This record gives sequence, C-alpha cells and structure tokens, in this order.
Amino acid sequence: MQGKFITFEGGEGTGKSTQIKLLAEYLQQHGKDVLLTKEPGGTDIGLELRKILLEGKVEKFDAVAETLMFFADRRIHMQQKVWPAMQNGQWVLSDRFADSTMVYQCYADNKGISYQDIMALYKFSVGNFKPDLTIILDIDPKVGLARSFKKAEGMLQKELRFESKALQWHERVRQGYLQIAQNEPERCVVLNADKSIADLHQDVITAIKEKFKI
Amino acid sequence: MQGKFITFEGGEGTGKSTQIKLLAEYLQQHGKDVLLTKEPGGTDIGLELRKILLEGKVEKFDAVAETLMFFADRRIHMQQKVWPAMQNGQWVLSDRFADSTMVYQCYADNKGISYQDIMALYKFSVGNFKPDLTIILDIDPKVGLARSFKKAEGMLQKELRFESKALQWHERVRQGYLQIAQNEPERCVVLNADKSIADLHQDVITAIKEKFKI
Repeated sequence: MQGKFITFEGGEGTGKSTQIKLLAEYLQQHGKDVLLTKEPGGTDIGLELRKILLEGKVEKFDAVAETLMFFADRRIHMQQKVWPAMQNGQWVLSDRFADSTMVYQCYADNKGISYQDIMALYKFSVGNFKPDLTIILDIDPKVGLARSFKKAEGMLQKELRFESKALQWHERVRQGYLQIAQNEPERCVVLNADKSIADLHQDVITAIKEKFKI
Repeated sequence: MQGKFITFEGGEGTGKSTQIKLLAEYLQQHGKDVLLTKEPGGTDIGLELRKILLEGKVEKFDAVAETLMFFADRRIHMQQKVWPAMQNGQWVLSDRFADSTMVYQCYADNKGISYQDIMALYKFSVGNFKPDLTIILDIDPKVGLARSFKKAEGMLQKELRFESKALQWHERVRQGYLQIAQNEPERCVVLNADKSIADLHQDVITAIKEKFKI
C-alpha cells in the first residue's frame, strides 16, 4: 500500500488527541493527504459499538466480550476506512489501535485474557498488517491524571469510565506500553509527554522525519 | 451446573422456533423450569448487536467482523443469561448457538474463515463449555425454503437477508450441520424435519427422553 498508518498510544492525559491534530496539520503543510481517525468508533457502525462500550453499559459484560467487541470495531475500521485510505495514498493517523487492547485488556486488567489470546485475535482480525509507526506518549500517571481531570471538568461523566480507575491500574497501563515498545523497537517510538505541547510536537516531528525520511 | 443447555440448529424453514416452543411447553408440563432464548440477540446488548447484524448493515462489513460480533453476542449471552439460569437449575433452550457460526461463517461461506479460527474463538469466548444436547433439524433446502418464504410473506424484507441466498449455499448449510453431527455424535441428534409439526415434536421428545432419562 502506498499510504502510511501511524498510531498514537498512551494513557490518560498524555495529550494524544492534541498531538495527533498538530501532526496532521504539519503533514498537510508538507503536501500529504491526511486522514485522522480513532478507535473505537472510527466508522458509523463502530460509533454504535463505541456507544455500547463507553457509555457505562460495558459494566454489564465482561473483559472477554469487551475484547471481542474492540476487535470487531477494529476489523470494520480497517476494512472500511484505513486500508482503502492507504490504497489511495493517504497518511492515516489513528488515536489508539491494537496496542490499546493489549495494554488495557491484557496487561492492565487481570481478568484472564492472555498475551496469546490478544495476538490470536489480532491475527484473525488484521492478519499480518502492522502500523508503519506507533508513537507512544509516556507520562507518570500522577501527572497525566491531573491533566486529564482538569480537561474533563466540562465532559460528561459517562465518558470518564476509563479515567476513574485507581492509580495502580494506570501504572500498569504505562508499563504495558513500555513493554510493547521494548518488544517492537522497530515499530514503536516512546516520547516523554511531560513537557509543553510545542516541545512534544517537535519530538513527534523528529520521530516522523527519522522514520519516513521526509 | 444443575440446569441443562439444549440448542436447536438447522437451516431456513426447518421449524426451529415452533419446535423449541413446543418442547418448552412439554418440559414445563413435566415440572421443569424452562428459559427460552436465542442467538443472536438473547440479551439487551445482544439485541442492539442483532440489529446491526441483521438489518442489512452487515453488508457494509465482512465475514471476519461479522464472526467477531457473533462471538461477542454469544459471550454476553452466556455470561449474563444462560450460565446464571443453569446455576439456578433452569433448562435453557436456545434457538441457535455456536454451530450456527461454524456452519454459516465457515462451512457455507467461502470467505477465508477456517474451522480452526472458529474453534479458537469458541475457546476464547466460551471455554470448554458445551451444550448438553443439540437438536439439528434437517430438511432438503428446496422444501425448507418453500416453507420459509410462505411464512415470510408477512415479514419485513430486511429480516430476509439470510433467506435470499442461492440454493447451493443452503445445501452447504445443510451439509455443514450434518458434518458437525458426525464429528460430535454424543452431543448432536439429527431429526428429519420434513414431517408434520406434531410428528416432529414427538421425535424431539424421544430425543430428550433418551438423553436425559426423563
């Protein structure tokens, strides 16, 4: 495929959505055709699944069902949106992808879902396809959560489900991402997110330039 | 678990929904606490998934996503409804279960989903649990489809998606079910559904008596 697929990952308050928008602007200014997307909920059907997953109803079902739903959303997202865009030469930037499922459903939660389970579902859902680059924004959960709660004052409570869990859990999320980066250094770049938006944006650009020689 | 889990399977027009209701009445008359359910859509969340799956939108996504959605629905169904009912000693009768996914998504369709894929998803979603008995209603697709279309004259067109496919495909569905019965003779009973409702009901009762010694 001619296009690129770049995913942003990281815990709460790392600034993913801000940085992904800034990168999109930068790439557009450099002549790239950019598509911004996200998981879950990157498609119309995915949005309906996202509602079921994030609007509290998820408490009614367990981690196994949740994991299957995330992969269903992912498959639809790839098949309907990401792969066609890449075929058209677009640079696709996604706010979260499969590493989120590995980190949240396997590493952070302790609900009997194994690394092998997630890898098998990945293979079934996405095959051998991988992102060209994954940017992991890393921050001490205490700092990240403080940012996140500040930002969330205007948000609906129902969207806060993932942000209300204990600090220890957020630390496992962080360590999960660092583990993935260690396993796949050729795909992943870890950036220290405990800095100004402008400085972090510069680090993102440096990572992009290094990877894609642009 | 104290209760029982009995699933009904078969192609279009085999009379599953009629026979399952008649069996429920029979068991209740014999003092059993019965729960009637179905897949997909046996729970509130499952109903939302069923809408997405059966109301035509499914054409927008592919067999892999469809299979993941069916297993998500199944996991929710088991966890929220079937297993708790069995714990309470209920006899749970389900109109379709995992054999439907094996037959429709693997045997009947030729979209790259293997037997091993379905078995791995089954293991992830349901573990080693199996129905106590699966009653497969078997009929020549020509006879079954004629019945089905007759019944469907009052139905909404959007519910007919699975019924409008070619006869050859329905023949593969039939052969898929027979293959499953051959693989697991201890779990499955195949009944000839090309007879009157009352006669087929008697055959169902005979199978139940033989299996459960009631």
